[in-house]
Amino acid sequence: MTLNPADPDFIAHLHQLLPGAAFREVEPKYLEEPRGRWIGQAGVVVAPATVDEVATVITAASKARVGVVPYGGGTGLVGGQILSDGSAPVLLSLERMRAIRGIYPDENVMVVEAGAILADIHAAAAEVNRLFPLTIAAKGSARIGGNLATNAGGVNVLRYGNARDLCLGLEAVLPSGEVWHGLKRLRKDNAGYDLKNLMIGSEGTLGVITAATLKLYPRPATEGTALIVVNSPEAALALLARARDHLGEAVSAFELMHRTGLEFLAETLPDLRLPFADLPEWFVLIDVGLARGLDPQASLGALFADAHEAGLVSDGMIAQSEAQRQQFWEVRENIPEGNRRIGSISSHDISVPIGAIPDFIIRGNKVIAALGAFRINCFGHLGDGNLHYNIFPPKGQSREAHVEKREAIKRAVHDLVHQMGGSVSAEHGVGRLKVEDLERYGDPVKMSAMRAIKAALDPKSIMNPGAVLRDPSD
Amino acid sequence: MTLNPADPDFIAHLHQLLPGAAFREVEPKYLEEPRGRWIGQAGVVVAPATVDEVATVITAASKARVGVVPYGGGTGLVGGQILSDGSAPVLLSLERMRAIRGIYPDENVMVVEAGAILADIHAAAAEVNRLFPLTIAAKGSARIGGNLATNAGGVNVLRYGNARDLCLGLEAVLPSGEVWHGLKRLRKDNAGYDLKNLMIGSEGTLGVITAATLKLYPRPATEGTALIVVNSPEAALALLARARDHLGEAVSAFELMHRTGLEFLAETLPDLRLPFADLPEWFVLIDVGLARGLDPQASLGALFADAHEAGLVSDGMIAQSEAQRQQFWEVRENIPEGNRRIGSISSHDISVPIGAIPDFIIRGNKVIAALGAFRINCFGHLGDGNLHYNIFPPKGQSREAHVEKREAIKRAVHDLVHQMGGSVSAEHGVGRLKVEDLERYGDPVKMSAMRAIKAALDPKSIMNPGAVLRDPSD
Repeated sequence: MTLNPADPDFIAHLHQLLPGAAFREVEPKYLEEPRGRWIGQAGVVVAPATVDEVATVITAASKARVGVVPYGGGTGLVGGQILSDGSAPVLLSLERMRAIRGIYPDENVMVVEAGAILADIHAAAAEVNRLFPLTIAAKGSARIGGNLATNAGGVNVLRYGNARDLCLGLEAVLPSGEVWHGLKRLRKDNAGYDLKNLMIGSEGTLGVITAATLKLYPRPATEGTALIVVNSPEAALALLARARDHLGEAVSAFELMHRTGLEFLAETLPDLRLPFADLPEWFVLIDVGLARGLDPQASLGALFADAHEAGLVSDGMIAQSEAQRQQFWEVRENIPEGNRRIGSISSHDISVPIGAIPDFIIRGNKVIAALGAFRINCFGHLGDGNLHYNIFPPKGQSREAHVEKREAIKRAVHDLVHQMGGSVSAEHGVGRLKVEDLERYGDPVKMSAMRAIKAALDPKSIMNPGAVLRDPSD
Repeated sequence: MTLNPADPDFIAHLHQLLPGAAFREVEPKYLEEPRGRWIGQAGVVVAPATVDEVATVITAASKARVGVVPYGGGTGLVGGQILSDGSAPVLLSLERMRAIRGIYPDENVMVVEAGAILADIHAAAAEVNRLFPLTIAAKGSARIGGNLATNAGGVNVLRYGNARDLCLGLEAVLPSGEVWHGLKRLRKDNAGYDLKNLMIGSEGTLGVITAATLKLYPRPATEGTALIVVNSPEAALALLARARDHLGEAVSAFELMHRTGLEFLAETLPDLRLPFADLPEWFVLIDVGLARGLDPQASLGALFADAHEAGLVSDGMIAQSEAQRQQFWEVRENIPEGNRRIGSISSHDISVPIGAIPDFIIRGNKVIAALGAFRINCFGHLGDGNLHYNIFPPKGQSREAHVEKREAIKRAVHDLVHQMGGSVSAEHGVGRLKVEDLERYGDPVKMSAMRAIKAALDPKSIMNPGAVLRDPSD
């Protein structure tokens, strides 16, 4: 059965149920997404101030069979926040639920509402000398509810895990409109099925996260960063193993980058100072956070010396100051912006078993070469087996000239990833962009379990219709 | 609709489907559990050798509406492996699926079958210089499938997490008899709902785990252990915070113990050498695993000096040898055996927010004192907010003389835990022992979501009937 639109009658009904402050103009910012692939639609934008108001919206939508699209910071890259066709939904923005409900430094715990911006959570943790380690490029506008709904990743997963690993409890409104009060501050709780992890990563299709209990960490006593030129992706992998032998969990980021990324930065962001005289083919950024009694420069120096003796690395720089650490990180953090300015034909957020990364890079390059003389910018979270494998037109040519190859490129890359036991959605989620990929590559038994769970918890299919799973009425 | 028994006709049918080697005698060992509370029943015991044979059993049971009780090492403490009433089920033992399917030291990954014994997994990891950190007292007989099905905890959760945090993927047979192939070796995979974590901790009620991809860790360069006498539970908590400030994630265990535990050991295991001349009221065992360049004795010494100056601790011993480390750990590891020999009236596996532990201990003691002059042995994983809070008869009296108080004691302790935002099942699971507790204390919206998920994935309710959730036909 198809959903009904959020039409004037339904909107008038919502106005009876919610205070005027809960309504927002249907502005373009709610209907656009970062890559400009789709334009969304909405009958009404509501921004509830409390979990009870969220429950009121969902209950009304359920009764009227109107779709609900939850909306965090709008920074998702797979269209999970954008419904571009079908009946106009309610767009439910968490922007007014930004409170930090409690901080418990002794427990390394913080309780926040879903609309809190990631960077504000970082700052609140820092104020009590703690660390909330989840961090992504969009941290200045992404909201924690969206980070959890999509199980966001980022550069610190190697040490601290994905968003799901940093969450102890949730408050959420289920598709029935009922509120699940699951904000416990417990490290161990084996009382029943893991509804928390089912909600995390379900991208708003099983309910709306309204608040979360987050794990904090002690801040490392000292931090250090190095940029190291590696002889090959295989050497990078061997360097990672040595880094963990030397430093254990202290390795908080291990990012692989390619010369193409530096060339794009030189071309599109000429004011950015690149820390290399000659651009290396492959290099890594290593970030460490150490316990008391260890010196980051000495530790990274010992690691470099060891790796150099083993023939893995040819050159390297260890940051001598916090300003230099920032400079090294700026290289990494600007690579997506350089990509955006060049304009990719097709971008892929893939993972493979860590040991298969070098082979994937060799085979991927062959697969792409067979389709044309494209440029490849391959970079990402080597320590997690997660690469951003993005394909660009030859130098001097436009993306538009090659856009008809997009599907063939994507299919070739995803087929290879699937053959190698990988995932075509490593950290960005499925959204609406990858629904077909999930149908093609997903385990059929898991897919049928997912559909059964969706039907059981959201029998009217109102929650974020068409995201993750195809709308059954389509 | 009630289930059918595994009767001679059904058993004859299974004999047509499976090789003779898959059948086991219905021996008492399959029907007993460690605390001797229940005796189980089974129409037939099958021990398949492959996932396809497991699927054959489940498919047949589904068609015939016969219950299936998955069986690992039989070490669970909440009766999840024991069906003592209702129609006789198939007992499905994973004991023949013990293979280690692959080890990938460079990826810190191991793929094992569900019947592998935890201690054998430890040994296999050690052979490639890696650590599988999950460890519990029953490690010599517990099987990893059961550890995952119950989301086992243990002494290293503080640093490495529960069983679910150590699992990257699963192979499982769902209640339909279909096989979910989810053994990916990926650190990041956001392709759809988190079926893995839904299966983990569902105690065999949503399917049978047949294999798992496990996370390994680098072995710490050096390890150290201290026993430290703390002035109070509050001081123990402050010591934990200081330990993490000094040592970061290197603190791998932080166990609180009480004099009662030592008195029980002196009484029941007189050959065990206790490392204290005068028995302290409260003390902790701290275990650390350090990166290169740090000395465990020096680090623990600095921590002790700091805590002593702050007035938190009065005495302490730092292990000077591996033999002494083992001796310190033996105290901790024998406490459950001492308890068993004394004989508890009621045992409680509870968690509260870490910061609430001292208050819980004060209020718990008052609650128990109001019920009688009982002895309390309170000990456990302070760093996880998880205490084993066990109640014993007064000295010289038998458990039997007080067994009629068991329900009142349990109710009083669990009511208090619930009031304090805690969990009445921290690490042992729900099984059949705590079904009523879950109904009493569980969030009703979560409970109804759980029932909907169970009905969606196991519409005939054949999987581990009556565990976690009451059988709908009851």
